[in-house]
Amino acid sequence: MSHLSLAQQRLLDAAADAFAEKGFGGTSTRDIAARMGRSSAAVYIHYGTKEELLYAISFQGHQEALAVLREARDAVEDPAAQLWAMVHRFSQWHMVHARRARVVQYEFGALAEEHRAEIRDLRREMSQLTVEVLGDGVASGAFVIADLEGTARAVLSLCIDLVRWFDPGLARNQERVAVLNADLAMRMVASPRTSLEG
Amino acid sequence: MSHLSLAQQRLLDAAADAFAEKGFGGTSTRDIAARMGRSSAAVYIHYGTKEELLYAISFQGHQEALAVLREARDAVEDPAAQLWAMVHRFSQWHMVHARRARVVQYEFGALAEEHRAEIRDLRREMSQLTVEVLGDGVASGAFVIADLEGTARAVLSLCIDLVRWFDPGLARNQERVAVLNADLAMRMVASPRTSLEG
Repeated sequence: MSHLSLAQQRLLDAAADAFAEKGFGGTSTRDIAARMGRSSAAVYIHYGTKEELLYAISFQGHQEALAVLREARDAVEDPAAQLWAMVHRFSQWHMVHARRARVVQYEFGALAEEHRAEIRDLRREMSQLTVEVLGDGVASGAFVIADLEGTARAVLSLCIDLVRWFDPGLARNQERVAVLNADLAMRMVASPRTSLEG
Repeated sequence: MSHLSLAQQRLLDAAADAFAEKGFGGTSTRDIAARMGRSSAAVYIHYGTKEELLYAISFQGHQEALAVLREARDAVEDPAAQLWAMVHRFSQWHMVHARRARVVQYEFGALAEEHRAEIRDLRREMSQLTVEVLGDGVASGAFVIADLEGTARAVLSLCIDLVRWFDPGLARNQERVAVLNADLAMRMVASPRTSLEG
């Protein structure tokens, strides 16, 4: 899966575009082939079913997103700097690849059960990576967090929800949004000066 | 639109279920009718096209979600209490109505252009309502926010992204998640005690 031919990658990109536009359920293998100026047979050379195509897109997308989180964490040492970099880069990834990321994030339910289990493992790794960094920050006294799992999920939600509303045409806003999300994540894990109680 | 007959409401619920399961593109009018044990003609009595059904679901869902935000704000006076209640209730709505909310949030692109414009207006009202409360909090000195629009969007993102991952089968977690989101939103708008810089 990690070494795709050029033809396979073109096919995955065409399929991701089609799924992003018409949804997985609304796309036929013929639609995908037509985008490449080929017949359906050209699709079946590489993937037996439409679901296998979706799985390949989803697997590749989740691997990329996980790698982005890992690299951001590994580039710095301090938990606060790690979290900032992770949210910044993870937000960017979801904006740069908004169409593909939408397919990756939203069509999870259309995957076959055994494929869903594999994707779930990759999602769990993303979550665990984030929980670890939050835990390190709590241990060092930099963060104050009552619910590590829930907070990790909320931090990732900030980034992932970008695929719903972000308009890739507005490229100049990408950096501002990524920085805002990273700054907000820092606030989410830090002890607030003010609170509802006063 | 605000006064639907029982038959219309049953039809919208069946359509929302079908769209949630197979996507708008993957659902036929016949699928929807079959869920109700009726023929396609029964659908066409009320709605001329599948898109009109989606629009009716989307309009109703957005109106409900907007009403939830308004009621939460109107129940209390202090901006901090208002924001907490808004995020708490808005999160709950997205969990209780997870299937329908997923259709409402994700199938925006499948709407006809004139319908998209109307839904966009409702989304803008939700955003403005949130921006107002954040602005009131800044004015009173309770909140420290550099980017009101961006922060409002991020706060709503926390709630909306629930439709992607929340499992309605786990009803006992709903209150915990809603409280966590509300608490995290309070942190997002408050001045942090610790930050990346120190």
